Amino acid sequence: MAQNGYSWSGRGTETEAVDRFYSVIPAGGIGSRLWPLSRANAPKFLHDLTGSGQTLLRATWDRLAPISGGDRIMVVTGRAHRAAVEAQLPELADENVVLESEGKDSSAAIGLAAAILERRQPGVIIGSFAADHVIGDNRRFRQAVVEAIALADEGYVATIGIQPTEPAIGFGYIDCGDRIEIEGAPSALRANGFVEKPDLDTARAYVESGTYLWNAGMFIVRADRLLEQLGKTQPELLAGLLELAEAWDTPDRGVVVDRVWPRLTKIAIDYSVAEPSAREGVLAVIPADFPWDDVGDFASLAKLQAGGRKSDLAILGENARVLSDSSSGIVVSETGRLISLIGVENIVVVDTPDALLVTTAEHAQRVKSVVDALKVSGRTEVL
Amino acid sequence: MAQNGYSWSGRGTETEAVDRFYSVIPAGGIGSRLWPLSRANAPKFLHDLTGSGQTLLRATWDRLAPISGGDRIMVVTGRAHRAAVEAQLPELADENVVLESEGKDSSAAIGLAAAILERRQPGVIIGSFAADHVIGDNRRFRQAVVEAIALADEGYVATIGIQPTEPAIGFGYIDCGDRIEIEGAPSALRANGFVEKPDLDTARAYVESGTYLWNAGMFIVRADRLLEQLGKTQPELLAGLLELAEAWDTPDRGVVVDRVWPRLTKIAIDYSVAEPSAREGVLAVIPADFPWDDVGDFASLAKLQAGGRKSDLAILGENARVLSDSSSGIVVSETGRLISLIGVENIVVVDTPDALLVTTAEHAQRVKSVVDALKVSGRTEVL
Repeated sequence: MAQNGYSWSGRGTETEAVDRFYSVIPAGGIGSRLWPLSRANAPKFLHDLTGSGQTLLRATWDRLAPISGGDRIMVVTGRAHRAAVEAQLPELADENVVLESEGKDSSAAIGLAAAILERRQPGVIIGSFAADHVIGDNRRFRQAVVEAIALADEGYVATIGIQPTEPAIGFGYIDCGDRIEIEGAPSALRANGFVEKPDLDTARAYVESGTYLWNAGMFIVRADRLLEQLGKTQPELLAGLLELAEAWDTPDRGVVVDRVWPRLTKIAIDYSVAEPSAREGVLAVIPADFPWDDVGDFASLAKLQAGGRKSDLAILGENARVLSDSSSGIVVSETGRLISLIGVENIVVVDTPDALLVTTAEHAQRVKSVVDALKVSGRTEVL
Repeated sequence: MAQNGYSWSGRGTETEAVDRFYSVIPAGGIGSRLWPLSRANAPKFLHDLTGSGQTLLRATWDRLAPISGGDRIMVVTGRAHRAAVEAQLPELADENVVLESEGKDSSAAIGLAAAILERRQPGVIIGSFAADHVIGDNRRFRQAVVEAIALADEGYVATIGIQPTEPAIGFGYIDCGDRIEIEGAPSALRANGFVEKPDLDTARAYVESGTYLWNAGMFIVRADRLLEQLGKTQPELLAGLLELAEAWDTPDRGVVVDRVWPRLTKIAIDYSVAEPSAREGVLAVIPADFPWDDVGDFASLAKLQAGGRKSDLAILGENARVLSDSSSGIVVSETGRLISLIGVENIVVVDTPDALLVTTAEHAQRVKSVVDALKVSGRTEVL
């Protein structure tokens, strides 16, 4: 493997790898495909989409705390969400909150967390997990993370790939290669690369092949390795992040943030780190079969809510009052108004105090286009 | 013709028939198929469904005033609607308001108006016209009414039948027979009878035959004749109505109403008077070709609103804000909320402060079943 920039060989021998593990939760995305439920002041991660009584953020925390310890979870979120995040996570220490003045995508969010943590504790292994995904089996999740930590400790950029249960077209896939022989990671495979959301025929072929896994956007990697890999493709971004990290725990933080943050490159970590690492042969994947969903749109939410009962209309909302003859689709009620559906199947109705959405599961992915149209037309008060 | 009960021969010779004409507007029906737009405290006739700026009731008044004179229009409505009706019709004289303590269907409503008016002015001809229909050509409407008055003056129970423009399945039809030779009613036909809402094949056959007209529920008849015909099929109802009429313009009205009104038989005038009159050979029809619609459901309303533009989504509501890619259906907005539709065609969305309806034009007739279900379940606060 290449050894330029940050050096990563020889680290991780002093303590057990899992003891050097730090969870990072980027809590930034609004979840535009779930508008008008999810919106700027109520992003997806602050909703209880499973009916568990917990927000997705809280559930993410509770899933990670047994692995890294609750004092070793860093949350990267927007300034506007600070209060809501802290209300959800009262255990969250001040030093573990990274506030973004504006969203700069996942490379900046995760990269800054890595840079700060690496300064505080050289050799730290970080695991980045979205704040707004749903995972159905925390035990199996933990097993996969522990294997991924072993891979990370050996210098790999590790990810966790989900065994597909159907030819989903809403997810990206990981093309898996040969086994990697690493102690503590018996199921590790080399990842040949990523593929974007496929069409249905391609998705079917992926599932039949048995060598493609869903990309759940989880990355487990030594912080120094992450920064090294980032520096290869985004040297300016890395420089900015290192400058921020250097000032972070000093009185200069505010000044440096104001100067540096606005100019950071916006790029997803998939493009800046994961794909290049795959090409370099240092991306590894732990296949996992725990139930997972990114709840990317209302069709996903309907499926999740119905819990496999195909003949049910899913209903979300504490005070929902629904009178319906529909046997499929979803109603999200935030108003308590009576909602009456007649003869509409696979319907999606999202009823909020200032905006109403009516569409079908089939068109659920297109919700984002409405949000875009509202932005363009300046009607941002409902976004 | 039979001459039992009220005698009707020889009347109407003293003054021109049209000078003895009195309009009656039964304004009672809620319009359940237009729920939640139409409801108990905001019935269909109090809505502007055409976008004209006028309620249907006001438009009905303005259509009738040039025929009977505004001082000769009687409105029969529920006590709960008195204030709203008077606000719509400031010209309406107190003596021309008949308030129902509870709805007793059209035989009681129109029969009581007839009985009161016959007492006040023997020989009066009444014309009963729904408060919540839409008519597109007041001149042709007036011509038809004037012909019908001539028929009524000769003792016929006259109605106005609308030339079908399509094989509608939402209307009843009138089966027309031979011409009737009456001075002043050159287009008069004998009506063989009524047929209920047909299926599509039957409706097509009706339209092709050229001898079936839409039943618009308009009845023009001498008051004494109406009462006579009613007495043949509903003698108890007639007795009650005559008792009410006798007390109406006296201090006893309240006492008599309280005693008699609750026990009146609920029956539509179509069954108590019109059909029996057809069987007896005294029902006559004036064919008319003015645009007419009873706006019976949201599919009708969508069609009416679109004004023939088949590629438009109809939008109703002063403050409607709709973002949509739909080219058919209707949105009714009473809240001013942003309403966003994606990929839904022939959709019906009715957005009111306390209730939301989502259905399709195809299922529009089934809206009433929701209202019924709400009644049964006791959720009357939204009705």
